[in-house]
Amino acid sequence: MPRPERQVLVCVNSRPPGNPKGSCGEKNSQELFDKLKLLLRERGLEGRVMLNKTYCLKHCSRGPTLAVQPDNVWYAQVKPEDLLEICESHLEQGRAIERLLMPDIPWE
Amino acid sequence: MPRPERQVLVCVNSRPPGNPKGSCGEKNSQELFDKLKLLLRERGLEGRVMLNKTYCLKHCSRGPTLAVQPDNVWYAQVKPEDLLEICESHLEQGRAIERLLMPDIPWE
Repeated sequence: MPRPERQVLVCVNSRPPGNPKGSCGEKNSQELFDKLKLLLRERGLEGRVMLNKTYCLKHCSRGPTLAVQPDNVWYAQVKPEDLLEICESHLEQGRAIERLLMPDIPWE
Repeated sequence: MPRPERQVLVCVNSRPPGNPKGSCGEKNSQELFDKLKLLLRERGLEGRVMLNKTYCLKHCSRGPTLAVQPDNVWYAQVKPEDLLEICESHLEQGRAIERLLMPDIPWE
């Protein structure tokens, strides 16, 4: 892979159970990462899209948080069933998915 | 912080000592992260630039690896003494630093 065309960041940060902020890790973001990794391979995107796990990407209560760069597009409350659409619409056609966008309010 | 103007990714991935790939964590990337966090605060950039720790960003032998998004600029072998220039030149004036650029060869 040369410098990636796009980079998908998946927050897998975990906080202890009961922490008021919650965390993406608690909301199964590792499962999102694993599923997206498979999807990228299946769709032949792995040479163009770099997939990375990150520590806290903020906005914890609205996690799991995904960011797609260099588009500076941030997605909130992403579910496994959203990933195919993220691949087809955003990563293949460059169209961000409105209904998943993180609200542009002060970030936690 | 609203949606960040820029995002700096710092790989803090660690591999066991002796692993042939090496890792950014072994090369004190946590120190880079801590120093950059202070610098962003000192220079009043913390409201515009989001700083995130990540797992492996590839190109391990050329670490520590930093990425600046949404510029899709990747820096290799970053040292603590490079961070002020990254703030002044790149994060404040939008000018990437040529001498630190990751070579655009197939990534490890």
